[in-house]
Amino acid sequence: MPNKVKDLSLADQGRLKIEWARTRMPVLEHLREKYSSEQPLRGLRVAGCLHVTKETAILIQLLQAAGAQTAWCGCNPLSTQDDVAAALAKEDIEVYAWRGLTADEYYWCIDRTIEAKPDLTLDDGADLTVRFHEKYPTLIVRVMGGTEETTTGVQRLRAMAEAGALKYPIVAVNDAETKSDFDNIYGTGQSSLDGILRTTNILFAGKTVVVAGYGHCGRGITARARGLGSQVIVTEVDPAKALKATMDGYSVMKMEEAASRGDIFITATGCSAVITEDHMKRMKDGAVLCNAGHFNVEVSVTDLEKIAASKKEIRPGNVEYTLPDGRRLYLLVEGRLVNLAAAEGHPSEVIDMSFANQFFSLIYLAKHHKSLEPVVHRVPPEQDREVARMKLETLRIGIDELTSQQKEYLKKYKEGT
Amino acid sequence: MPNKVKDLSLADQGRLKIEWARTRMPVLEHLREKYSSEQPLRGLRVAGCLHVTKETAILIQLLQAAGAQTAWCGCNPLSTQDDVAAALAKEDIEVYAWRGLTADEYYWCIDRTIEAKPDLTLDDGADLTVRFHEKYPTLIVRVMGGTEETTTGVQRLRAMAEAGALKYPIVAVNDAETKSDFDNIYGTGQSSLDGILRTTNILFAGKTVVVAGYGHCGRGITARARGLGSQVIVTEVDPAKALKATMDGYSVMKMEEAASRGDIFITATGCSAVITEDHMKRMKDGAVLCNAGHFNVEVSVTDLEKIAASKKEIRPGNVEYTLPDGRRLYLLVEGRLVNLAAAEGHPSEVIDMSFANQFFSLIYLAKHHKSLEPVVHRVPPEQDREVARMKLETLRIGIDELTSQQKEYLKKYKEGT
Amino acid sequence: MPNKVKDLSLADQGRLKIEWARTRMPVLEHLREKYSSEQPLRGLRVAGCLHVTKETAILIQLLQAAGAQTAWCGCNPLSTQDDVAAALAKEDIEVYAWRGLTADEYYWCIDRTIEAKPDLTLDDGADLTVRFHEKYPTLIVRVMGGTEETTTGVQRLRAMAEAGALKYPIVAVNDAETKSDFDNIYGTGQSSLDGILRTTNILFAGKTVVVAGYGHCGRGITARARGLGSQVIVTEVDPAKALKATMDGYSVMKMEEAASRGDIFITATGCSAVITEDHMKRMKDGAVLCNAGHFNVEVSVTDLEKIAASKKEIRPGNVEYTLPDGRRLYLLVEGRLVNLAAAEGHPSEVIDMSFANQFFSLIYLAKHHKSLEPVVHRVPPEQDREVARMKLETLRIGIDELTSQQKEYLKKYKEGT
Amino acid sequence: MPNKVKDLSLADQGRLKIEWARTRMPVLEHLREKYSSEQPLRGLRVAGCLHVTKETAILIQLLQAAGAQTAWCGCNPLSTQDDVAAALAKEDIEVYAWRGLTADEYYWCIDRTIEAKPDLTLDDGADLTVRFHEKYPTLIVRVMGGTEETTTGVQRLRAMAEAGALKYPIVAVNDAETKSDFDNIYGTGQSSLDGILRTTNILFAGKTVVVAGYGHCGRGITARARGLGSQVIVTEVDPAKALKATMDGYSVMKMEEAASRGDIFITATGCSAVITEDHMKRMKDGAVLCNAGHFNVEVSVTDLEKIAASKKEIRPGNVEYTLPDGRRLYLLVEGRLVNLAAAEGHPSEVIDMSFANQFFSLIYLAKHHKSLEPVVHRVPPEQDREVARMKLETLRIGIDELTSQQKEYLKKYKEGT
Repeated sequence: MPNKVKDLSLADQGRLKIEWARTRMPVLEHLREKYSSEQPLRGLRVAGCLHVTKETAILIQLLQAAGAQTAWCGCNPLSTQDDVAAALAKEDIEVYAWRGLTADEYYWCIDRTIEAKPDLTLDDGADLTVRFHEKYPTLIVRVMGGTEETTTGVQRLRAMAEAGALKYPIVAVNDAETKSDFDNIYGTGQSSLDGILRTTNILFAGKTVVVAGYGHCGRGITARARGLGSQVIVTEVDPAKALKATMDGYSVMKMEEAASRGDIFITATGCSAVITEDHMKRMKDGAVLCNAGHFNVEVSVTDLEKIAASKKEIRPGNVEYTLPDGRRLYLLVEGRLVNLAAAEGHPSEVIDMSFANQFFSLIYLAKHHKSLEPVVHRVPPEQDREVARMKLETLRIGIDELTSQQKEYLKKYKEGT
Repeated sequence: MPNKVKDLSLADQGRLKIEWARTRMPVLEHLREKYSSEQPLRGLRVAGCLHVTKETAILIQLLQAAGAQTAWCGCNPLSTQDDVAAALAKEDIEVYAWRGLTADEYYWCIDRTIEAKPDLTLDDGADLTVRFHEKYPTLIVRVMGGTEETTTGVQRLRAMAEAGALKYPIVAVNDAETKSDFDNIYGTGQSSLDGILRTTNILFAGKTVVVAGYGHCGRGITARARGLGSQVIVTEVDPAKALKATMDGYSVMKMEEAASRGDIFITATGCSAVITEDHMKRMKDGAVLCNAGHFNVEVSVTDLEKIAASKKEIRPGNVEYTLPDGRRLYLLVEGRLVNLAAAEGHPSEVIDMSFANQFFSLIYLAKHHKSLEPVVHRVPPEQDREVARMKLETLRIGIDELTSQQKEYLKKYKEGT
Repeated sequence: MPNKVKDLSLADQGRLKIEWARTRMPVLEHLREKYSSEQPLRGLRVAGCLHVTKETAILIQLLQAAGAQTAWCGCNPLSTQDDVAAALAKEDIEVYAWRGLTADEYYWCIDRTIEAKPDLTLDDGADLTVRFHEKYPTLIVRVMGGTEETTTGVQRLRAMAEAGALKYPIVAVNDAETKSDFDNIYGTGQSSLDGILRTTNILFAGKTVVVAGYGHCGRGITARARGLGSQVIVTEVDPAKALKATMDGYSVMKMEEAASRGDIFITATGCSAVITEDHMKRMKDGAVLCNAGHFNVEVSVTDLEKIAASKKEIRPGNVEYTLPDGRRLYLLVEGRLVNLAAAEGHPSEVIDMSFANQFFSLIYLAKHHKSLEPVVHRVPPEQDREVARMKLETLRIGIDELTSQQKEYLKKYKEGT
Repeated sequence: MPNKVKDLSLADQGRLKIEWARTRMPVLEHLREKYSSEQPLRGLRVAGCLHVTKETAILIQLLQAAGAQTAWCGCNPLSTQDDVAAALAKEDIEVYAWRGLTADEYYWCIDRTIEAKPDLTLDDGADLTVRFHEKYPTLIVRVMGGTEETTTGVQRLRAMAEAGALKYPIVAVNDAETKSDFDNIYGTGQSSLDGILRTTNILFAGKTVVVAGYGHCGRGITARARGLGSQVIVTEVDPAKALKATMDGYSVMKMEEAASRGDIFITATGCSAVITEDHMKRMKDGAVLCNAGHFNVEVSVTDLEKIAASKKEIRPGNVEYTLPDGRRLYLLVEGRLVNLAAAEGHPSEVIDMSFANQFFSLIYLAKHHKSLEPVVHRVPPEQDREVARMKLETLRIGIDELTSQQKEYLKKYKEGT
């Protein structure tokens, strides 16, 4: 198979990484055993645009075991693990990915997966899907459907559907309960702080952490920041979320006010221009800025570059910007998602569930694509239930079952006090 | 106005309670000022069946200020605060409620509110609504709609709608984000433990608390039990909820297994027969049992009465059951909802939001009832937003607003990495 | 035996309370069984000045079972449980205590226990010991020694010893690891918040709680306030404690600054004038003030009375003070210790350990008083170990034991890297 | 100056690391400015044996600014940061350290610092001090005194003093409140989990973490493990500590029982053979083992090597041991302290305080060595106060001061209830 990766000699190291991930992803392993003979994706081509990490390698292996042919690229210029990419290439998997892509290279890789003429797309952030719609009108007609992994991507695709521009049905894997209530909360929460630790080795205890956004990711991040001993300030634009943050014991205020109080700033909003020049000018000497949202537009790097007198990389992935008055601000991994660019992304255990949803959603699209409108669809509820059930089983956790009397009770409405 | 309460001489004490609640319910106070002249409920009769507490008194005053006439009864035989009922009666409000109702008296009170010929019903647990449908076919035709406060009630009314038995539209106040994400989590969480403290004065630190159900109420209770220093075990029937409890750091297992480990058991499922004879027989000497769900069917009192050799009330609201082998189990407030029967129910601050939703939902029904099907409806999303906004305002918490560029960004889908 | 209590007819209710406490105090029960025949305190008279509660009743029963004769009074005008006092009186125990003592009555009760000519004193706050030294020079000569239960009392007695005024040895029960690390942290933490709940029914989630003092009690209170969903501000005079509070994730600032931010204020310093006029004038409308320290001097009630335009009791134990500008401050139980005056004091489970220390310390004084200087002594370390061991045993928790090789290893110093 | 490091070309990278650390160690920076002219250590030679990290570099620079000459080695074969060592060497500082020392090389490095004829020793784990006593009888006579950084080292030196073998006074820096209550709790807590994250990228949420030892380090680790969403089991040999862990909401049991429940095991006892063959044989497939105590004897690597059928390094610092039945156990960094060997050790912010204590203790020894017995001494209490005060100041946190009336109050003992 064709491929383009950084360095094939890293394959052995990559293989060990994949092997390690496999020990932590029992649901995917179980699915691989279960579907290897049935092969529900036999003969279908899947184009994947999703961080090329050890966990994704396990997903690709599952897709292939289920009969699919795959062509893969990364969905972020800084997130590819080059050794894993090498290991995949050595296994003769079609992969176009390396860490440190230019914008042109980034789209060149995406184009390769589209030109492989997929029946299904699997996307993370919607770059593949949007590119497909914009540049490949001829190839798009054969696509049965696609999936989307992230909040940001789902938001883009919904906007596209509302604009009448979407041409094939999308399953919003992100919105599965067993995805966003786990991956986005526990995965992003831990791995974002992990990325900050690796790039700064800062002590969280006693610090003030400002988290922008109290959605799934924001809630995970605040919980972990508090768990490491920080005070947490939350900024929001949604009143109900702001109120929840308050009731959860966090300080809530405008970013304008938070700017001068924070030691560490983490954005997780899915929006742009969350931290700008005005805020940066109020910050304390030594403040650390980073982003856990999908795109690198939440912390305005442009603004920071503009107001800084000088800059230098003081640790890998940690750039010191000195303002004219001598204060120093530290930007992590260029404002790109800190958990992937500075650490290893979500831990395998939680991606295990997200990718099980990807797998089931592709099968669902393959089966039902003819009856699905070209809009964004929710995952079927029984899929959520099944993924949760399988995960509990691999954790050897038993739960209660409703007795027939209880089921009866829940249907009744006449019996009162 | 006609009324029936325990003792009118308690009115002064009740008035002070209401005055105290008023200091903690700024949203309702704000609404009272705002709607006193406009009177959006002028001329309408509201039948209310909801715990007669100091907070409910503030709601009734708001409804009257908005032009409504009200007739009120309690929705639980043990939850009426007799002094508050007296204060309402003294204010010439039609109220039928006292603590310690028999089943007959309970329905007699409900019937009084129905016979007052309401245009709207406001319910908590659905007893009023169900009774109305069963016994008053002639009066029901004039009803515009009703609201429902609880998870349990909404569940009953959905079952009723599915059976085609519901005759007027219901707004599920319970399902408002500003209700169930606050009242059920923070309100039930704190007040349930408060009820246990008042009836036992037990030390939570070092204890094992078993919580049945990890819905909104269960999540609130587990958070507070942990916050008081307990280890928490969760039992569930839903795999995804069980998995969330696991990821939140709790032990998850079957009740059968949890039974022998727990020091304190709290049910919050909305189901029946959650703790039964089989479980009780495995419990440790000294175990405490109580319920935070709407109906007193979660802990099987029947089973406990059956297997006990003797019983006595060792503290108010705390009955010691001695099993034949000498082990002692302690049942709180007869298995009725421990937060209302043993403490004072949800704190005013959080009911402030729930009742603002009740108020807006009644206005909504009054305005739109003609176009609403006789099924269970969600609250309009802008109502949620408005309630949250008003609550933040009274807390003097400012939040960010989207700039026009940000709004633009959120609509775009083309800009990628 | 002579006695003076409020109402002997409350004895039955008191007996049930004591019975309930017994189920939660397995260490004292175990000691009672163990020492009933040996009677290590046979023939000795003990004067006790310690809150007359259900737990103290269990201690008195233990002292009597161990051979002592006792004369008892309360150590706080508002903390006596009248029903328990009645039950003790009915058991023919010498007790002088009722809730709501005047200052004169308070000392009259203490004097009765001194005039009973004790060999040993058991004190809580040091009022008995100080009174004994000041008024009874003749009787004091026969005293072998005494114990002291609280931080405040130990502080007073150390000051007394330093001034050369102490005439008999004191064992600082408070400073036992199995006392102050448990009773003061977990006991005061939970019961103080319980007292606030009972007098206010306030929602802690989303509130800002200001805790003055980050000693044992302060740490317990902050942990529980956070556990209930509050933001916590700590004030301190000790730099190291202030720094610990910071690292534990709390805001630390001067009371002057905290005053305008807090919704609830709790003092736990052992000092006087912690919250004064200057602070009160900055507080928000609706702020709640209370004290968890031994004496009612931490919140300056005098200052509050001075600056208030009017006051009224709005709930039992909760007095509303209205300032000239209309703001209202709420003072709980007259600034006396909120956990005892507004709730039931420390839960039995933790007093179980404190009182085991009282028991062992009295035996220790009886055995060794001749060789002990008239200063404040620490409890013997093996006593701490023994109390902890017994508590674990009653909780059925097994722990590891050092192997002989491990003991050897710990003695060695030569083996390095 | 002589030196031996891995690779001088790493100096630039090391210098940046040191520069970064400097931004996080304001107390040491403040001391450097303050003592540069006074030079309280002028003319004294200090032999240091302490992890050669970026923070230690700041300490060495402080010692030199204060007039001392230094000779330095690492105190652990795996903890030297080679780039920092290179930067120090380039600054002409005498340093003997590189990552991956053999046992012989380790002692060769120590010997170099002793042969530099120090007046003072600064130790971490006591290897330098013990070696000095054993091999250099002639040189030891000129030593004024030494300091010790760790619990383990203090324990060894106390054993040595008790055996009458200690020849010069030691100040137990470890036991300073501003050291062990901060470094050991917040520093070890965060950095140990950081080490596990870097070597495993495991998800802590939902896992069961077994922590052996509930001393300062153990308490820090349990708090952080819980903060990341794990259930925590504690094992202990001390009853009072076991009871505290219980009251803090952790499960306490014997290691024998914990072995089959844990997903991750972390030892922090200061003892040997805490996890042995018997425990390993009961563990689940996939269990991770590591150590946060000073020496690599807590997890018995010997036993693991003995029972394993095969092993391989699956990630850097993470070795997979396969047992004959196929179960796999993962040992991190050879059982050496995981926070230093797998991450970067304690964050600078907290070492800032520990090293301020080192600095003050050396000055104290220089001044008072003639009057100090050759035993282990506590740091003077005013030193603790001063370090805390300086740290608060650099954090810009103001605290209350006792008024003269309050000071008076605290001295009085007569005023009671």
